[in-house]
Amino acid sequence: RKRILITGGAGFVGSHLTDKLMMDGHELTVVDNFFTGRKRNVEHWIGHENFELINHDVVEPLYIEVDQIYHLASPASPPNYMYNPIKTLKTNTIGTLNMLGLAKRVGARLLLASTSEVYGDPEVHPQNEDYWGHVNPIGPRACYDEGKRVAETMCYAYMKQEGVEVRVARIFNTFGSRMHMNDGRVVSNFILQALQGEPLTVSLFFFFFFFCSDLVNGLVLLMNSNISSPVNLVMSRSQIQFLSEAQDDPQRRRPDIRKAKMMLGWEPVVPLEEGLNKTIQYFSRELEHQA
Amino acid sequence: RKRILITGGAGFVGSHLTDKLMMDGHELTVVDNFFTGRKRNVEHWIGHENFELINHDVVEPLYIEVDQIYHLASPASPPNYMYNPIKTLKTNTIGTLNMLGLAKRVGARLLLASTSEVYGDPEVHPQNEDYWGHVNPIGPRACYDEGKRVAETMCYAYMKQEGVEVRVARIFNTFGSRMHMNDGRVVSNFILQALQGEPLTVSLFFFFFFFCSDLVNGLVLLMNSNISSPVNLVMSRSQIQFLSEAQDDPQRRRPDIRKAKMMLGWEPVVPLEEGLNKTIQYFSRELEHQA
Ligand SMILES: NC(=O)c1ccc[n+]([C@@H]2O[C@H](COP(=O)([O-])OP(=O)(O)OC[C@H]3O[C@@H](n4cnc5c(N)ncnc54)[C@H](O)[C@@H]3O)[C@@H](O)[C@H]2O)c1
Ligand SMILES: NC(=O)c1ccc[n+]([C@@H]2O[C@H](COP(=O)([O-])OP(=O)(O)OC[C@H]3O[C@@H](n4cnc5c(N)ncnc54)[C@H](O)[C@@H]3O)[C@@H](O)[C@H]2O)c1
Ligand SMILES: O=c1ccn([C@@H]2O[C@H](COP(=O)(O)OP(=O)(O)O)[C@@H](O)[C@H]2O)c(=O)[nH]1
Ligand SMILES: O=c1ccn([C@@H]2O[C@H](COP(=O)(O)OP(=O)(O)O)[C@@H](O)[C@H]2O)c(=O)[nH]1
Ligand SMILES: O=c1ccn([C@@H]2O[C@H](COP(=O)(O)OP(=O)(O)O)[C@@H](O)[C@H]2O)c(=O)[nH]1
Ligand SMILES: O=c1ccn([C@@H]2O[C@H](COP(=O)(O)OP(=O)(O)O)[C@@H](O)[C@H]2O)c(=O)[nH]1
Repeated sequence: RKRILITGGAGFVGSHLTDKLMMDGHELTVVDNFFTGRKRNVEHWIGHENFELINHDVVEPLYIEVDQIYHLASPASPPNYMYNPIKTLKTNTIGTLNMLGLAKRVGARLLLASTSEVYGDPEVHPQNEDYWGHVNPIGPRACYDEGKRVAETMCYAYMKQEGVEVRVARIFNTFGSRMHMNDGRVVSNFILQALQGEPLTVSLFFFFFFFCSDLVNGLVLLMNSNISSPVNLVMSRSQIQFLSEAQDDPQRRRPDIRKAKMMLGWEPVVPLEEGLNKTIQYFSRELEHQA
Repeated sequence: RKRILITGGAGFVGSHLTDKLMMDGHELTVVDNFFTGRKRNVEHWIGHENFELINHDVVEPLYIEVDQIYHLASPASPPNYMYNPIKTLKTNTIGTLNMLGLAKRVGARLLLASTSEVYGDPEVHPQNEDYWGHVNPIGPRACYDEGKRVAETMCYAYMKQEGVEVRVARIFNTFGSRMHMNDGRVVSNFILQALQGEPLTVSLFFFFFFFCSDLVNGLVLLMNSNISSPVNLVMSRSQIQFLSEAQDDPQRRRPDIRKAKMMLGWEPVVPLEEGLNKTIQYFSRELEHQA
């Protein structure tokens, strides 16, 4: 039983992680500024003796005592992170420095929720964790891509210089309940279009997706492993096949998942159909709720 | 006549820029934490009515009133920036955010001293300003390379979102008086080795260098131009030819200088021999001074 901090814990991934860690019996502190997250996502835990929810922005220092930090706070989809690029940069730079400063002071281990976007528009296929990426430092997506890249740099600087234990998960696109319906990404677009009887906006690219429960298990495995180098977390190759016409999305990104498989023994298990069914049910309920 | 702030103004490049702008009759504020800079570099201006020197770290906020900001504060050579990678990251992220916040508040234009290191270990030759670079986000040089990349990202975020006028100079290796004798870089190594009668550590790579007075003129031209996109500042191709065995230095980096030439009408004019002679004289005096 550990004292665990989740930043961004009221968001899509963070709230599923909250559910898992609470169910495992840990003592949890969720920190969120509710920019894209919602109290509703974690409200079923409010009042539980092991659970605390703090309305706090990670750009400001935070002084608490914990054993592990899952650092997820950051807008995650293009419309959200491009809404206020300066804030996205502050969250990923100052916010990450603050959480590493906290980890250093209390001797906690920190897991950074990084992203496949650190590979940018890749020129090497598939991308394993040694690939340096191909990112435009001054493009419209740079606030997120470069913000996450330098957040990784910061993790390893604190590891080498201060002995902070870090874990870095490079997460590929994830879907599931509590995801943002209007994030403009392919899964949400398709489900909404289907539910509303509109034609699907289909084009020729492949995408790699996986279900949130698989991701959450991967994050917990990684946190408790001894692998300090970055690890790709993504669905195994056979399970994808998705099409969209989102134009600015990096094309032809194809992850190499062997490291997670070999070193963590981790692999997504939820079949695409099952994950999609659950997500579609969530979207239907949300649409009803809105109507 | 303008009110101008130079951060890192007591350093190598900053002190030459100070000389030029003072001679042009501007009102100058130099901010420096003296990590690699020295009071000696600007002491000939102390007491002048147009000159103010503030001992200040850009990682802390700064509230002054100015029209232009040359933002140079950052360690610049591998031994200096790897001495304390966390501090290098803080300086380039929080320090740059602070100076952009200042520029936003007072309506000043900001010029960022970026670097050819944003191109990393390039896979495209020559590198023009549209090249995205090839940088290891978690390597030992990342505190500087990724720090500068995200500093550029921040500049353009403040430009687009807040209307801050920015200029970005991607500076290639520069030499001259007041440079750091022990920075482990090829020019300083060669001059020291030559002056001390030691064999030169020569190998097979080409380097591109230019003299500080040329750089300083380029910076001032860029600041007062209307070019907000990044500009390479480097010696024209005919004037280089240098050899070294520094192993972790990006190999075969070959800049494209046409943008600066065409859009700024700028080109280095100091012949390599003359620049080297002046630098050798400076090193000799420093060695005498130490003895
Ligand atoms: N969902 C994906 O497909 C995916 C893919 C790659 C990486 N990630 C990463 O996983 C993490 C979680 O993503 P998500 O999909 O759950 O997104 P989300 O937007 O649902 O969650 C992010 C949470 O962080 C909070 N937050 C944002 N800025 C904050 C700040 N300054 N201070 C405190 N809280 C702040 C938001 O309110 C939200 O609750 C993010 O770091 C994201 O970059 C997600
Ligand atoms: N010299 C080159 O060849 C070269 C090449 C590319 C880019 N640049 C850039 O030009 C700028 C100046 O480089 P330089 O060669 O004069 O290096 P330098 O080390 O001589 O100068 C940097 C100055 O910044 C100051 N400084 C560092 N951190 C600071 C902080 N946190 N707060 C306040 N001051 C701080 C140092 O004390 C020093 O005076 C740097 O930003 C560097 O990255 C230089
Ligand atoms: O428990 C802590 C310890 C530090 N910090 C923040 O983390 C940052 C980085 O920490 P570090 O120890 O590197 O910074 P320092 O205090 O040495 O400047 C600091 O600026 C603090 O704002 C925090 O939020 N909580
Ligand atoms: O995590 C956040 C928090 C807020 N905002 C938006 O950004 C604006 C400014 O918010 P804040 O004061 O938190 O950011 P800052 O002033 O530091 O840019 C507000 O309109 C918010 O809607 C955002 O994009 N991300
Ligand atoms: O004159 C100023 C104005 C701002 N800042 C700093 O610049 C940062 C970024 O400024 P911005 O306006 O984006 O930040 P905000 O105040 O909205 O958080 C702030 O955190 C301040 O610390 C500064 O040093 N001098
Ligand atoms: O610009 C600087 C200032 C200091 N230091 C060194 O870094 C250490 C910590 O300095 P500081 O308190 O300024 O940085 P922080 O605590 O934020 O890492 C000291 O030993 C300094 O020699 C550095 O590398 N760069």
